[in-house]
Amino acid sequence: MKEYKIAVVGLGAVGREMLATLERSTLPISEVVPLVRRNEGEVIEFRGQMFASKLIEKGSFKDIDIALFSAGEEASLILAPMAIEEGAVVIDNSNAFRMNADVPLVVPEVNPADAQRHNGLIANPNCSTIQMVVALKPIHDRFKIKRIVVSTYQAVSGTGYQAIDELKQQMGAFINEKEIPCNVYPHQISLNVLPHIDKFMDNGYTKEEMKMFNETKKIMGDASIQVTATTVRVPVIRCHSEAVNIETEKPMPDVAEIKEIMAQAPGVVLADDVENNIYPLALDCAGKYEVFVGRIRKDYTIENGLNMWVVSDNLLKGAALNAVQIAELLVEKDWVKPSSDKKISFAQ
Amino acid sequence: MKEYKIAVVGLGAVGREMLATLERSTLPISEVVPLVRRNEGEVIEFRGQMFASKLIEKGSFKDIDIALFSAGEEASLILAPMAIEEGAVVIDNSNAFRMNADVPLVVPEVNPADAQRHNGLIANPNCSTIQMVVALKPIHDRFKIKRIVVSTYQAVSGTGYQAIDELKQQMGAFINEKEIPCNVYPHQISLNVLPHIDKFMDNGYTKEEMKMFNETKKIMGDASIQVTATTVRVPVIRCHSEAVNIETEKPMPDVAEIKEIMAQAPGVVLADDVENNIYPLALDCAGKYEVFVGRIRKDYTIENGLNMWVVSDNLLKGAALNAVQIAELLVEKDWVKPSSDKKISFAQ
Repeated sequence: MKEYKIAVVGLGAVGREMLATLERSTLPISEVVPLVRRNEGEVIEFRGQMFASKLIEKGSFKDIDIALFSAGEEASLILAPMAIEEGAVVIDNSNAFRMNADVPLVVPEVNPADAQRHNGLIANPNCSTIQMVVALKPIHDRFKIKRIVVSTYQAVSGTGYQAIDELKQQMGAFINEKEIPCNVYPHQISLNVLPHIDKFMDNGYTKEEMKMFNETKKIMGDASIQVTATTVRVPVIRCHSEAVNIETEKPMPDVAEIKEIMAQAPGVVLADDVENNIYPLALDCAGKYEVFVGRIRKDYTIENGLNMWVVSDNLLKGAALNAVQIAELLVEKDWVKPSSDKKISFAQ
Repeated sequence: MKEYKIAVVGLGAVGREMLATLERSTLPISEVVPLVRRNEGEVIEFRGQMFASKLIEKGSFKDIDIALFSAGEEASLILAPMAIEEGAVVIDNSNAFRMNADVPLVVPEVNPADAQRHNGLIANPNCSTIQMVVALKPIHDRFKIKRIVVSTYQAVSGTGYQAIDELKQQMGAFINEKEIPCNVYPHQISLNVLPHIDKFMDNGYTKEEMKMFNETKKIMGDASIQVTATTVRVPVIRCHSEAVNIETEKPMPDVAEIKEIMAQAPGVVLADDVENNIYPLALDCAGKYEVFVGRIRKDYTIENGLNMWVVSDNLLKGAALNAVQIAELLVEKDWVKPSSDKKISFAQ
């Protein structure tokens, strides 16, 4: 059986989760190559072998089959074209190429077939979008979603290690009545909530909010789905929670039947038993692979409305795990080789 | 000038804020009478005088003009009828009488005239509803709101002192790597968010979510307004934040004009300058009297849609301050005396 040589580019919060997820996966891997832009030489243990991280240079991707990128948008913009040129298939976690028409944007439970049409590059969607589309895909298939109103409760790990450290430092400073340090976010995050994730755009929305709008349409393959989002950072370390309100075109059955649909949906765990205080919680979902759905209830204010609460680990299904699942899909379907010789237009 | 004798029933988080707010108000007060159901004898300083808290007994309200109740629903159910019988006008902060047709539910910026029609009892609305209707009233007056989709980010002080203590204890235990105590909420609140406030109803909504639905209609005096809510507890000590999405019947002007409307609205402070990272924040609004509105932006997914972010101090405008403002309104308009001899039907 062919074994794959897999590069992991970037060793931040998501890069390390990629390594851990690869280690647990069933992918036939001959070697992992941790690549970094600085601080090389860190030794990573992977399936009992040791691999030292190397600086990225010309030729780094020459014998790499699949390169999982998680080193930020700027690194992806510079290095992904080079990796593709050198023959690797890139699965990129950044925002750099997601809306590029030549680049599939893939969530394996939702649009696996799109992965086949890659030209050397597949984009991994934004964390807050991934968990929402996994939860909504079975509803959309049956009842056609017209509009989504979503408010998020996003963990600081989405920003990276430095944000986790800052939250902990702020908690410690508060408890010890010290001055509270504030460097990562524009405002204190401990004991606060910030309606501000990523940059503000001219239309008043943040980039994070517009990602949920744009990426949902592309992943679902349906430009008619409308999404309006308010994305909010909360003092949680891991797992994003989302209050999702939807309106469908077709009438939905009763809640019991919708729960049954969710319970059967790929990648979804139904956690909905309010009588016993069971609903998805960030603390419970940390480290888990699935998207957890609960608080499912009809929205009686419109004809075909539904509310639900969706939680998933932003570093796993929201990032590292989804990227690894794309790699698994390529290997399983024998889609690693690009589908055509078409060159990706990076000028879009 | 007539001076009023005012009783404050209950000395929890809200009761103490009522005393502090009364102290700062311009109400002509001859005496405050702190009344409790247990632990009497605590000495309260008020405008330089000392008042000892007394146990409630028959006759406690005999010479009280206005009684501000904040001792929980059960206490209100038992004691408010007695207070009215003894001649006091009750302003009740609990959920006990809010939907009673004989009881006005009043937010002074929104429906002051309703206060005149009281029969000895005025209900103070739920915290999450009050701040939302203050923010939305100027929009509703001009453009008629059809539907509201709201997700809340609610502070633990809404539950009371014991929840503030528990959040702090959980933060300390996490920082010191001790076992995390969990007694007040069914799940840990520190580093978590709980989509669960108040009891669950048969329709899958919580009572808190249904309060936003029912109370908004009553306060706005418009049963056609639809509200669907997801209410969520977050690890914040003070101030509720809300992501509010609205649809209006009439077209709305551009965002600049809506901001101008909000800036002029009674009880509202516009905090909306995203280029300078200015938007309402729970930490900033603690101790403030107003409702803070920001992140105002058109919702382009429907014809007449708008998103906004609304923050206010849940103990002040959400509870104690609004109750005191109702008392001020009654005094100012000379509405302290009931408008009729009609007896309130408590059997509703």
